[in-house]
Amino acid sequence: MAVSKSELFKLSATQAAELIRRDHISAQDYAQALLDRVRYRDPQVRAWVYLDEKVILDQAKWLDSLPVEKRGPLHGVAVGIKDIFLTKDMPTRYYSRLHAHDGNAAADSAAVAILRSAGAIIFGKTATTEFASMTEGGPCTNPNNPKHTPAGSSSGSAAAVADYQVPLSIGTQTGGSIVRPGSFNGCYGFKPTWGTVSTEGVGRFSISADTPGFYARTVEDVELLARLFRIDSLMTAPLKPLSIAGAQVAFMKTHVWPNAGPGTHAAWDLAHRLIENHGGKIEDVELPEAFSRCSEWRETVVIQEARAAFLSKYCEDKSKLHVDIVSLVENEDLPSPKEVLEAHDGIARLRTEWDQIARNYDIIIAPSAVDEAPEGLEDTGIAVFCSMWTILHVPAMNVPGFKGACGLPIGLTVVGSRYSDMEVLQGGKAIGAVFNTSQ
Amino acid sequence: MAVSKSELFKLSATQAAELIRRDHISAQDYAQALLDRVRYRDPQVRAWVYLDEKVILDQAKWLDSLPVEKRGPLHGVAVGIKDIFLTKDMPTRYYSRLHAHDGNAAADSAAVAILRSAGAIIFGKTATTEFASMTEGGPCTNPNNPKHTPAGSSSGSAAAVADYQVPLSIGTQTGGSIVRPGSFNGCYGFKPTWGTVSTEGVGRFSISADTPGFYARTVEDVELLARLFRIDSLMTAPLKPLSIAGAQVAFMKTHVWPNAGPGTHAAWDLAHRLIENHGGKIEDVELPEAFSRCSEWRETVVIQEARAAFLSKYCEDKSKLHVDIVSLVENEDLPSPKEVLEAHDGIARLRTEWDQIARNYDIIIAPSAVDEAPEGLEDTGIAVFCSMWTILHVPAMNVPGFKGACGLPIGLTVVGSRYSDMEVLQGGKAIGAVFNTSQ
Repeated sequence: MAVSKSELFKLSATQAAELIRRDHISAQDYAQALLDRVRYRDPQVRAWVYLDEKVILDQAKWLDSLPVEKRGPLHGVAVGIKDIFLTKDMPTRYYSRLHAHDGNAAADSAAVAILRSAGAIIFGKTATTEFASMTEGGPCTNPNNPKHTPAGSSSGSAAAVADYQVPLSIGTQTGGSIVRPGSFNGCYGFKPTWGTVSTEGVGRFSISADTPGFYARTVEDVELLARLFRIDSLMTAPLKPLSIAGAQVAFMKTHVWPNAGPGTHAAWDLAHRLIENHGGKIEDVELPEAFSRCSEWRETVVIQEARAAFLSKYCEDKSKLHVDIVSLVENEDLPSPKEVLEAHDGIARLRTEWDQIARNYDIIIAPSAVDEAPEGLEDTGIAVFCSMWTILHVPAMNVPGFKGACGLPIGLTVVGSRYSDMEVLQGGKAIGAVFNTSQ
Repeated sequence: MAVSKSELFKLSATQAAELIRRDHISAQDYAQALLDRVRYRDPQVRAWVYLDEKVILDQAKWLDSLPVEKRGPLHGVAVGIKDIFLTKDMPTRYYSRLHAHDGNAAADSAAVAILRSAGAIIFGKTATTEFASMTEGGPCTNPNNPKHTPAGSSSGSAAAVADYQVPLSIGTQTGGSIVRPGSFNGCYGFKPTWGTVSTEGVGRFSISADTPGFYARTVEDVELLARLFRIDSLMTAPLKPLSIAGAQVAFMKTHVWPNAGPGTHAAWDLAHRLIENHGGKIEDVELPEAFSRCSEWRETVVIQEARAAFLSKYCEDKSKLHVDIVSLVENEDLPSPKEVLEAHDGIARLRTEWDQIARNYDIIIAPSAVDEAPEGLEDTGIAVFCSMWTILHVPAMNVPGFKGACGLPIGLTVVGSRYSDMEVLQGGKAIGAVFNTSQ
């Protein structure tokens, strides 16, 4: 593969890793190409809240000096880091005034340490909302149209990948903070099964819901990260080949469907036709009534856990917190312990039930968001389309492929049972290929 | 209350806070008294892995300069911090060679930030085992006899409090790492309901089990911390007065009882008699058979989550890890996803069932450990007596009061339903008073 230097930024992570490992290109040239892309595009996109050319090029230089046998699976590949993951060579600031002057961490967060050990260039810190918990927009814009929101809270991580500024990034999802930005910006956004990627060194919002995950422009690149994080070790048996032709494909509108706008309606219908045309055996599946309580139960759990998470911030200096975070801590009108336990235990029962349902299908498709990204940067959108999968702890990935009325991306979600992460990626790859025949 | 300077170290946290708030003693004099105690005792006990007189006295000096209206509930009170909680003015090293040269954190862990905001003196970092996950002993000894283990992994936090070096400390429990050291050293050790104290900035072992908690020499002091961390906000109704006379007291040996040694047998029988003599209505309760699977299910969950937790350490430099941690990551013979899900879902069902059982009693008593602390520092003991309560997410506190054959402390555990934390403390206070009539 011959690639001109000016086109290096378009490489997928898998392609870049291969070329750098074989010394066909240097990590420094690759990093420089991405930096040029950032310089050209980021004044408008504003995906980065911390990016230091010297820190990047020093890493690249050091990586170029390593002999081939010491090069890891991500050798020289640039990764964007949501600004709630601790990094030892960059500050971590949570888009919070409370942490505005924090310096570098003593040690990397677990996810960053794994990436760095694999030879990744920790490229910079990406824009988020305050403590990844607010829907009030940060500085970032949608790379497809700067007047539209990139969603949140993993705003910069999704925008930087969709905009070819880096091939990979990491984010977190507590409601819909990985999948929705994936849909709004137009890239793959994968939230693995809860507990498979450590949240050590990651800002806390809700312990039962917070889940780190990945962005990429190809499923192959998502798989690269899934293997790096050993998510493939959770498979009970090797993956069987999957073809849309003959596959059992469930379409699940779920209880959130009444919120869906025309763009998501159109994407849904088109996906239906495309998969049918490719020979998929479609079943429109309605979930048992109990699942309609999932979003509300998640809300109850998150409100209570957020209070525990933000108490320290509140004690340190409440004047530096968003008023909604202050009232989360101060509010006496919380869910009662009885309601919290009902929510925890209700969700636990649904997890078992969901797994049984999910195992009946090869691929399960659900909506990712209300519609394409709305105009305006103030509001990053609602999480309700994704929050059910988050609290059920199941793998969920946005698959891009459609466009809304303004021409902005719309994706759909592929989901599965707990620990079926690699199957979800495989299914996402198959439907992603089919969706993209429509363009 | 008049206290001579040489006796200041004996004050409870509640007493010290009251005296310092009213300027009857200065934070500096109090800190100096504790430092003198440390200098006298710690060459033998070795509870501290980091303790800097200047950092302590600077905090005390600054606290003394604050006007009365700016003094928090822990103003001037010294707190020991298990060396897996990030601190901005001290390094955090996890008793790991991998972190042996780490510097200060950019920001305090959530629990430390709450303590510091309340005016506590962050006194130093206490000894633990490697990543709070190993039972191979650290440097710390049992203050009652230096030839005996102080237990682990919150070894130094329990030993420092039991030895009057500080009145309070924080630790974490994933199996029995708060309650067992409480029993072995002879102090109260309280593990609250999971999720009530944030683990942000705390070394990860198992996300479903890791629970921060507190050590103190009086229940009043534990309550001081419980209120500071807003655990009292989880009560549905104000506490009703509790007296042992007429109280429904359950004694639950649980499935671990066959492991109990003569010291725990004797403590159990004596506790039985004491509570009966004080008019308690005792019921010896056998749990349904399903609860006997709890420890094994917890083990399955922890093994799998530990692998996710330690993958980053392994990737960074496996040569610096304990061989057991290396094999946790490398071991291909892990519980299968099916077994892990069976464990998660089985435990979730038992949580609901346990709460229903627990609500029938005013006080529930269970064993804390096999026996008094055994001789030898190599092995910190087994967690099985406590691990069931950890994974059920319920509040559990060691209540000291008994002695073993070598004259070392033995405690019993008081437990309750999820979110009954304040009731558990109240029950612990009542039985603690009764137990101590025996001495």
